[in-house]
Amino acid sequence: MTGDTPYESLTPDTLPARLGGLSAVTDHAGDPASWTVEEVGDGNLNLVFIVRGAAGAVVVKQALPYVRLVGDSWPLPLYRAFYEYNTLTRQAARDPGMVPVIHHFDRDQALIVMEFLSPHTILRGKLIAGEKVAGLGDTLGRFCARTAFRGSELSMKSADKKADVALFAGNVEIPAITEALVFRDPYCDAEMNHHTPGLDPVINTLRRDVAMKTGVQALFQRFASNQETLLHGDLHTGSVMATGSDIRIIDPEFAQYGPMGFDLGMLTANFLMAFLSQPGHRQDQNLTGYQDWILAVIANTHDAFVAEFTYLWRRERTGMLYPAALFEDQGHSSEAALADVLQRIWTDAVGFAGVEMHRRCLSLAHNADFEAITDPAIRAPLEARNLMMGRDLILSRADFPDAAALCERARQFNEKDIL
Amino acid sequence: MTGDTPYESLTPDTLPARLGGLSAVTDHAGDPASWTVEEVGDGNLNLVFIVRGAAGAVVVKQALPYVRLVGDSWPLPLYRAFYEYNTLTRQAARDPGMVPVIHHFDRDQALIVMEFLSPHTILRGKLIAGEKVAGLGDTLGRFCARTAFRGSELSMKSADKKADVALFAGNVEIPAITEALVFRDPYCDAEMNHHTPGLDPVINTLRRDVAMKTGVQALFQRFASNQETLLHGDLHTGSVMATGSDIRIIDPEFAQYGPMGFDLGMLTANFLMAFLSQPGHRQDQNLTGYQDWILAVIANTHDAFVAEFTYLWRRERTGMLYPAALFEDQGHSSEAALADVLQRIWTDAVGFAGVEMHRRCLSLAHNADFEAITDPAIRAPLEARNLMMGRDLILSRADFPDAAALCERARQFNEKDIL
Repeated sequence: MTGDTPYESLTPDTLPARLGGLSAVTDHAGDPASWTVEEVGDGNLNLVFIVRGAAGAVVVKQALPYVRLVGDSWPLPLYRAFYEYNTLTRQAARDPGMVPVIHHFDRDQALIVMEFLSPHTILRGKLIAGEKVAGLGDTLGRFCARTAFRGSELSMKSADKKADVALFAGNVEIPAITEALVFRDPYCDAEMNHHTPGLDPVINTLRRDVAMKTGVQALFQRFASNQETLLHGDLHTGSVMATGSDIRIIDPEFAQYGPMGFDLGMLTANFLMAFLSQPGHRQDQNLTGYQDWILAVIANTHDAFVAEFTYLWRRERTGMLYPAALFEDQGHSSEAALADVLQRIWTDAVGFAGVEMHRRCLSLAHNADFEAITDPAIRAPLEARNLMMGRDLILSRADFPDAAALCERARQFNEKDIL
Repeated sequence: MTGDTPYESLTPDTLPARLGGLSAVTDHAGDPASWTVEEVGDGNLNLVFIVRGAAGAVVVKQALPYVRLVGDSWPLPLYRAFYEYNTLTRQAARDPGMVPVIHHFDRDQALIVMEFLSPHTILRGKLIAGEKVAGLGDTLGRFCARTAFRGSELSMKSADKKADVALFAGNVEIPAITEALVFRDPYCDAEMNHHTPGLDPVINTLRRDVAMKTGVQALFQRFASNQETLLHGDLHTGSVMATGSDIRIIDPEFAQYGPMGFDLGMLTANFLMAFLSQPGHRQDQNLTGYQDWILAVIANTHDAFVAEFTYLWRRERTGMLYPAALFEDQGHSSEAALADVLQRIWTDAVGFAGVEMHRRCLSLAHNADFEAITDPAIRAPLEARNLMMGRDLILSRADFPDAAALCERARQFNEKDIL
């Protein structure tokens, strides 16, 4: 398979013949004669194969020219694999060991061969199953801080960052999905929307709230314009794989330049949804104990973000923004400036969290935390809490001093009878 | 002169032979035998020739491969002419008639042939001379609003805007000038700084003010990251040419994507400096009357910006941000959202104005409003007012409800004895 071969999607049957000559695969999976190939893609967009052989296993991820969740009526450019590859290499440099090792990239085939993570499973499934992961918040908060800081002009040379902004500006259709599904569709009668029966009164409340919609659009404008750093762009609990103690980040195909608080906000929202959906998955002491653990993860994520960002601010602030020449070199502390930057990041994160909580119950791509609750009579009231808390976060995004305050608010919504 | 000819800077002597075959020049200036050529560039960067002939006149602007103000020790890429050309065409589309007509562009020679504006002169000179221009604020405010709105995702298709962001991301060295001279150098001992004797106590006050420097860097981060629209990027009164009633905008070679309030802020700062420097140029009733007129221009500029932005919001909001689907289509007014957007723009504008007021007295490129006051004993106290007002604007940027409040503050600083 060379760069001159036109794109063709793989199947488990064709994969050995087409990739059998690649040392990037045979080095890790052994002789093609020994391979078994399984297609396991459960995401919304791509083909994902596990290739197991005598020497081990690899993952082969290939983009499809359309949105898998919807079908070929929604075409989507193959070039997203190029941006995913470029993002994985940057993330690997900025937080080593946190993303899968890349063995091979083929731009024409929109295909990435990468490390097979085992026995890792998707974090969202663990949260639904009530499993804990040691060090989760610390690791995720540090990842968000390192990628946010090291991808920004706090750290990078401005010319390098501008060149990278230009590169990623070529990625148009993928951000367009977020733009439509996250920032618009939840707040109007969009074609692909669906929601649990019984939520209409809450949805009407949201759509009538002009102040909240104005907040959503202010956040949208920041997301679309404010290219502070290279984001993962889709950092929900389905983009995290873990064992009981090892944690990796996958699937950055929604990468784009955006506000430093975006990934932290997405992640926080998805933990809040895990928290609020727990009464649909377990009861009594198991419920209370596990919900407490999820809130602790949220707090740890935030605290680790602040600690790591602070560390990097003090040690790696080599970019043009907030230069030492204006602070330390004149004998002045820059800690107040750091606090100001962190406050803006956190305000953004809280606001983006609120928007994410809305779209995951109202727009196209719902999340399993709620969807796995099969009885709509149980699901709807939990989603109602989630939707109303999302509204609260958007409206009050500047008013949360820290994650502890956010967790306290989550406990209050967890008790509310909204429907 | 073809695209294959290597770059060579023009001189009045070589220009007729090199451009005599261009119909873009002969159509407007007539037969080359009739030409007289004068080099008139008084800016910091480029060669500017007026070519007068039997049929009329044209301007030929050519980039030099270094900063003219400093010399060939500061090289500067010729590609800036390409960005200037691209900006002029966009500005011409967004506010027709406001920029010079382009007759010819030669990318390899970094050369633009354009309309000769006559009897227009540079606005800054008029302000120093005490001349009024009818409709000035209305025209400039409308220009800022039209270019801000129509270059943003309030209006443009997102894909088109992203492609343009990628194009302009190639412009690295020109924004780097603003980044260093505006947002860093005034606040530290930079090599190219100079200032009027006597200002040291004020400069020390500014540099000791950590809260203010933190504000400057927050504005810097917005300038560097927040790519809301295509800016002129250097919209001071030296970039405006006018007769008593006709007004044009020139020299957008500092164009870049940035916050919608930046151009409005630069312009406001330059009018404030014109206002505060007037006591060095005239006295008594002439002084009071002309200062009142300048403040009226500031207020008119702001009011016209708000009026035009509001008009465009209601008639041309075709981009993805603040879509009608979330407001008008649901029977909800978007006027509160508009007010929110305008408030953010104005807050940015006030902050950027403060930074501009600092750099024009402390960094490399001072402005003639103050520099033309030859006696340092007169100049210094006026510059001190300007510097302290700049500090006030940065610190209080979120607290000015409108331009009237800003003008009132300017009157207060105009009375202060700071040195």
